[in-house]
Amino acid sequence: MAARGEYAKGRARREQILTEAVGLFAESGYRAASLRDLAARCGLTHAGLLHHVGSKQALLLAVLEQRDVEDASLVGPDPSLPGERQLEALLDVVRRNVSRRGVVELFCVLSAEATSPEHPAHAFFDERYRRVVAALTTAFADCGHPAPGSAARRLVAVMDGLQVQWLLHPDDVDMVAEVRAQVDRELDRPRG
Amino acid sequence: MAARGEYAKGRARREQILTEAVGLFAESGYRAASLRDLAARCGLTHAGLLHHVGSKQALLLAVLEQRDVEDASLVGPDPSLPGERQLEALLDVVRRNVSRRGVVELFCVLSAEATSPEHPAHAFFDERYRRVVAALTTAFADCGHPAPGSAARRLVAVMDGLQVQWLLHPDDVDMVAEVRAQVDRELDRPRG
Repeated sequence: MAARGEYAKGRARREQILTEAVGLFAESGYRAASLRDLAARCGLTHAGLLHHVGSKQALLLAVLEQRDVEDASLVGPDPSLPGERQLEALLDVVRRNVSRRGVVELFCVLSAEATSPEHPAHAFFDERYRRVVAALTTAFADCGHPAPGSAARRLVAVMDGLQVQWLLHPDDVDMVAEVRAQVDRELDRPRG
Repeated sequence: MAARGEYAKGRARREQILTEAVGLFAESGYRAASLRDLAARCGLTHAGLLHHVGSKQALLLAVLEQRDVEDASLVGPDPSLPGERQLEALLDVVRRNVSRRGVVELFCVLSAEATSPEHPAHAFFDERYRRVVAALTTAFADCGHPAPGSAARRLVAVMDGLQVQWLLHPDDVDMVAEVRAQVDRELDRPRG
């Protein structure tokens, strides 16, 4: 019983750390974020925090991976679905993003920082963009789009770029409506 | 003559500092960038650097404004031109970006960081996005687009988002061709 209680406590602590880390990385970026600040937010000593997370870099990757587990549909749209359904599933991700500003900030800042080859999340984003563009290329091809690779790249770009505009002007930017408009234009659906 | 020589030297020094600052902010972001590192890159003491730039924040704004002077066509497309010509002028900016990775990195990282209201470049990007979206809305309206505001937002988003993909995979992403494809789709031109 004691061991199980310790385990549950450790897991709760780890979840708290990841939640606080999302906020800190989103506010400061990875480079400027300090583990001492994070420890203070979590009510831990610096050494206590390191015991839980190993290193700043390991913490970053844990944060990124946790989000992608939550959004399996973005990371790898189900290829057994028809292309139009896969594109529809993307809108669910955008819808969810509207309710979690911190996660959007996190990805916005980290994906920009991580374009630098020396950044510890470089390989993560490198692989992620390849995978998402490839999956959406297949989806557009399934819809009969004559240039599915270009449509896929531009749809991913629209989703990323809209995040910056939405973070700046949340009341003026309807991310879901704009992503839907982008898909509609690509598929030659009537304009809303 | 001595005074003029001093003036020219001061100006050359300032240009050197701005050039090095573009590189440093692009690599590290604003928050993590250190004026001590910048001073070392410029062969100056920390105090000597402060004499030239005033403060880290003033330096950041000088860097941002310098780029926008160079790209007047992006910041405020000439409203006396027909809409199609204004959209064409955007492609020149993208073309120029392909030859200056450092500037693209800079804007990519800073625009993400600056979505935070406390960031010293927040007001700069807030105003810049409003202006660019408004100008492109007018351009699309001039082309008879039925939803010019949406087309403008998504075109700005595509340009921003493509920069992340291009920085990650420069050999796979043709930013000029993709921005052109986006404009073509909006204006119902035949697909390339």
